[in-house]
Amino acid sequence: MKVLITTVPFGDKDRRPMDMLEAVGAEIHVNPTGRKLTELDLARMIETSDIVIAGTEPITDLVLSKATRLKLISRVGIGLDNVDLLAARARGVRVCYTPDAPSPAVAELTIGLMIDLLRFIHVSNQRMRRGDWYRYFGRRLSEVTIGIVGVGRIGGRVLEHLAGFSCRRILVNDIKSSVSVPSHPTCRIEHVDKDTLYRESDVISFHVPLTGITRNLVTRKEMLSMKPGTVLVNTARGGIVNESNLFEVLESGHLGGAAIDVFDREPYFGKLADLDQCLLTAHMGSMSIDCRVRMEIEATEEAVRMIRDEPLRSEVPQVEYENQSFAE
Amino acid sequence: MKVLITTVPFGDKDRRPMDMLEAVGAEIHVNPTGRKLTELDLARMIETSDIVIAGTEPITDLVLSKATRLKLISRVGIGLDNVDLLAARARGVRVCYTPDAPSPAVAELTIGLMIDLLRFIHVSNQRMRRGDWYRYFGRRLSEVTIGIVGVGRIGGRVLEHLAGFSCRRILVNDIKSSVSVPSHPTCRIEHVDKDTLYRESDVISFHVPLTGITRNLVTRKEMLSMKPGTVLVNTARGGIVNESNLFEVLESGHLGGAAIDVFDREPYFGKLADLDQCLLTAHMGSMSIDCRVRMEIEATEEAVRMIRDEPLRSEVPQVEYENQSFAE
Repeated sequence: MKVLITTVPFGDKDRRPMDMLEAVGAEIHVNPTGRKLTELDLARMIETSDIVIAGTEPITDLVLSKATRLKLISRVGIGLDNVDLLAARARGVRVCYTPDAPSPAVAELTIGLMIDLLRFIHVSNQRMRRGDWYRYFGRRLSEVTIGIVGVGRIGGRVLEHLAGFSCRRILVNDIKSSVSVPSHPTCRIEHVDKDTLYRESDVISFHVPLTGITRNLVTRKEMLSMKPGTVLVNTARGGIVNESNLFEVLESGHLGGAAIDVFDREPYFGKLADLDQCLLTAHMGSMSIDCRVRMEIEATEEAVRMIRDEPLRSEVPQVEYENQSFAE
Repeated sequence: MKVLITTVPFGDKDRRPMDMLEAVGAEIHVNPTGRKLTELDLARMIETSDIVIAGTEPITDLVLSKATRLKLISRVGIGLDNVDLLAARARGVRVCYTPDAPSPAVAELTIGLMIDLLRFIHVSNQRMRRGDWYRYFGRRLSEVTIGIVGVGRIGGRVLEHLAGFSCRRILVNDIKSSVSVPSHPTCRIEHVDKDTLYRESDVISFHVPLTGITRNLVTRKEMLSMKPGTVLVNTARGGIVNESNLFEVLESGHLGGAAIDVFDREPYFGKLADLDQCLLTAHMGSMSIDCRVRMEIEATEEAVRMIRDEPLRSEVPQVEYENQSFAE
């Protein structure tokens, strides 16, 4: 079986995924470009593959139309916005993913980004490098109202981490209004609608998938409904917070800052980098060594199961297909 | 009574301290330079003052020799390394401080800096601004061994915050070997000697005062005893981690990074700013609005008590005078 690995680096911190594939005699092809593939790159590369171990590159109907031998897309990660699930199903291609593995790393990064924004760490660091000593007044997690949009695997862990900070008030919003949240010793967690969350929070963090419903969830209108000085964290997916609107509203001074780890187009080289108050990271949410290794191993295990004709264990559930049918 | 306020900004986020002083008829003089005073500035400015509400500027025997009317030094903060306590006592000047107020802000900043270093947040942010997209592999707090040097008001709070991160292993070192630490659900906290802490930790954070004993606590020798890739956080005082040794060892690549909020000389304009892996902030540990306001109010309350001839409530305890008698 031919296995195409598009997500790079792969097998870099831990060779086990490569060893596992070699042990079952797979013919391995690794994305040689060292970067995220475009639709056309992938369409060319995927032609003779039986299995693709995939990153976030676009696996569209066009790509799938070229992949006549393809039986399995095994996503290294949780997001499925780059995979046309319905097209895959129509062509008989199964799709699996690793929904749990990235959560710890994304949640921890999120807390770091929140403190960074609230305390102006990155802004001070940039000014110090210009010989500019300025002591910013910040705010603490326990003083502010924190809004969490999406309380699934990742949002739930963010709440767990916040338990150690004696937070006073946390607002959550989720599709499931009955989502269970960890009990907090010091803090009441309130389920509210999005309007209330946007209006009353000082820090707002997004932990929802990118779907037709969440694309452009936060545009100029929502940003302007937030309090002056509010800071935003997006470690979920580009497209949830509208990038060009964010640029305008940050530049206008209405929002206090933003930490953006995910972008409409990656790699990102856009103008948010011109704003000191915008903290940018290179889609590193899941990039802790332990989580990344776990993601690669879990995705590879599914490929190995397919090669050995064993049942798959983490196929994408039906609800994800339904969510995507709303997409534009 | 003449009250000199040397620490600036003061009364900026909350006017109450100024109102309190005006209510008791104090003649208020505020440091007009907008920056930390030098010894000579202060010696000139302090001559006719009865009370000084002080920052971290040097209150030396020379300064005190000019301050013939001075009765009270009320420090806005916890550190006393800038006050010659024995000289003050010899001249009949009482000294009080606000030991509890800064702790929450310093502890929270420390967690932010730890995550920042472990996940390369600031390095990625700098590279993104140069149009350089690079996805760093980081480590999580729960994967690494964390070393905390000094488990007093601030170090203890750092441990509380870490409780929310399911840490696996935390090493602590403190003058008091019996220091009590919060119970952690997932983690064993071990008291170890400094050599063991330096040798086995992946993240090391310092929460000790600057005294004759802690000056140059960490020099090249200690840094080289640490594991390759270890990261250091200093939110305590400059001088505890030797700055020029840190530059050399970071440049050599032995340490993974450092977050430095405090410096030998402040404002800092030194060469650590040339190293991407060194995250610099402008002595902002206590600079959350709530903590700073609390510090200013508590320090002002002591000044008001002195003016009203009431007993002081937070005079510096004898042990601090004894610690300083070790100083070089």
